[in-house]
Amino acid sequence: MNERNIMDYETVALDDANNALVIIDQTLLPGRTELISLHTAQEIWDAIYLLKVRGAPAIGVAAAFGIYLLAKQIQTDDYAVFYEEFRKQKDYLNSARPTAVNLSWALNRMEQVCVQNQDLPVAEIKDKLKAESILMKEEDIHVCKAIGEYGLTLVKPGDGILTHCNAGQLATCKYGTATAPIYLGQERGYHFRVFADETRPLLQGARLTSYELYSSGVDVTLICDNMSATVMRNGWVNAVFVGCDRVAANGDTANKIGTSVVATVAKRYHVPVYICAPTSTIDMNTPTGADITIEQRPAHEVTDMWYEKPMAPAGVKVFNPAFDVTDHDLIAGIVTEYGIAREPYTESLREIFALKKAGKGICP
Amino acid sequence: MNERNIMDYETVALDDANNALVIIDQTLLPGRTELISLHTAQEIWDAIYLLKVRGAPAIGVAAAFGIYLLAKQIQTDDYAVFYEEFRKQKDYLNSARPTAVNLSWALNRMEQVCVQNQDLPVAEIKDKLKAESILMKEEDIHVCKAIGEYGLTLVKPGDGILTHCNAGQLATCKYGTATAPIYLGQERGYHFRVFADETRPLLQGARLTSYELYSSGVDVTLICDNMSATVMRNGWVNAVFVGCDRVAANGDTANKIGTSVVATVAKRYHVPVYICAPTSTIDMNTPTGADITIEQRPAHEVTDMWYEKPMAPAGVKVFNPAFDVTDHDLIAGIVTEYGIAREPYTESLREIFALKKAGKGICP
Repeated sequence: MNERNIMDYETVALDDANNALVIIDQTLLPGRTELISLHTAQEIWDAIYLLKVRGAPAIGVAAAFGIYLLAKQIQTDDYAVFYEEFRKQKDYLNSARPTAVNLSWALNRMEQVCVQNQDLPVAEIKDKLKAESILMKEEDIHVCKAIGEYGLTLVKPGDGILTHCNAGQLATCKYGTATAPIYLGQERGYHFRVFADETRPLLQGARLTSYELYSSGVDVTLICDNMSATVMRNGWVNAVFVGCDRVAANGDTANKIGTSVVATVAKRYHVPVYICAPTSTIDMNTPTGADITIEQRPAHEVTDMWYEKPMAPAGVKVFNPAFDVTDHDLIAGIVTEYGIAREPYTESLREIFALKKAGKGICP
Repeated sequence: MNERNIMDYETVALDDANNALVIIDQTLLPGRTELISLHTAQEIWDAIYLLKVRGAPAIGVAAAFGIYLLAKQIQTDDYAVFYEEFRKQKDYLNSARPTAVNLSWALNRMEQVCVQNQDLPVAEIKDKLKAESILMKEEDIHVCKAIGEYGLTLVKPGDGILTHCNAGQLATCKYGTATAPIYLGQERGYHFRVFADETRPLLQGARLTSYELYSSGVDVTLICDNMSATVMRNGWVNAVFVGCDRVAANGDTANKIGTSVVATVAKRYHVPVYICAPTSTIDMNTPTGADITIEQRPAHEVTDMWYEKPMAPAGVKVFNPAFDVTDHDLIAGIVTEYGIAREPYTESLREIFALKKAGKGICP
């Protein structure tokens, strides 16, 4: 365990003076908490692709800081030249993770800053890009806190909460999404008992969630993914909180592989499953889960976890989808920063966006 | 991949001429397939304790061969002296895995050979011990093959089959239980597509099942335990075959942790779950799954899989049950060597035992 509390660190930060995007290298956790500075497009792309920074909101903010830093380096006063180069860099960063809607959402939002200010000098556009990226980080923190407040209304002190993967502080700029109710509850003496699925193959639950919760003093128990039925059968779990990578208009939710397994098991044991979803991860243009493309990842993530001993026969076929889709009928509620959507999601999610458009409802 | 097919090897063999119990050292799999010869009580005890030989039926037969070889070395013609020494050796071997029922079952059966033949010369008792141990191995192969034949009636050529943990050739003397239909299908050109859950925490599915199936030319794909919903949702799985550690009288089944998760998911996707259960694992004196005590295992099995990098924060709490209970309503059939039991299990399992008592029904 590290001496400093994880909450002392920032998951994603802009070091503008040094033209650097600064992140915690999450591939080194929980052994070592190390900040790394990224300067080039290649370094930023690699960090996203290699999951040094991961979690939809954190990826979004990292991409916003990243595209700002790359735009800043474009040496031209000609908007057309600037914009063409901006688009190239944007498309490149966007190719790092296909399933995460936040990546393209953040990059598109940054592009809009260019387009809407194309009559200004390029230097001023760069300033506006910086301001927008900083705003996006502040919004992320505000959104996570709001999700935490709404989520907290769904549980009571002493409850058991199960979570899968890491939709924690390390996946966002602060609080996390699925962990936001846990951290707020912790501040208020709720004494939750949390179960963290280790989340194979990359063990984000073991390496990141159990690490950040344990480091923050939360009562957390690490389990293997295949133990969810046992803890629920034992009556230890009152609610499941998970994050998401993309929510479709009907409520179907793509999240880390195994989420739909947890949700199916939870249904059997009458445990409600709540998706913690910033509205930025809700894609009303994706009608259902069937329309979500699932990223396939390399076999070695599954087979090469043991360094001294092989854990699978060399050459064996491996299927390694990064995400799965949880059908909306398995979801008790979708917790956004504008409130909690319930079945039928096609309507309730539309209402959430109406509140957002009207600028109402977000928790203080 | 090894050059020789795993089916060329015997999991457990008696080399009487050399006074040796010969086993595949399973702790070296899947990296190296090595046969080791065990001669002394200490060597046999270590092999069982260190899981060089594992799987209930394989442990039973190894213990039978082992106690025969140790008995053979007792230098006396006096039955009382012989029996006292036999008991000492038996108690010693039995202490290697005190919770493994098959170990004491096999050793008790061998002791009965001594007791029932105490009026014969010691040399003849030794011959009878040898015959009994060989018979136990033959019975194990016969039982597995019968389970395979019955199991094969539940699937058709080209089917997708999912299995969890290792109830394979390596857990028995040949064919395995859950893998018996797969191997028989392989011999008959059924071209099954098999999905092997890696089975955390000890990865028996990755290390052993995917190894033995791959080595035998079966079309096997390794997945993480939390991917079962995805492969079933994709329509790739027509049946689940798993082994078991204990079946209660009502059909509730204790098997490797995660089995009940697979079964819950399978129910959602209308995939039948079959338990492959030699009648020796069906305990009519255990009324329901609630009466089965679940062994808890140490935290390091979950947290210490990475040798170079820590995979969980030091000191975090871990819950590590070795087994879970799959409720009988999730089970489509229990495949025994005397036929397939179906709901209601309380009746059908009783009928299976009636067939066994009558010596009828076992597959040729």
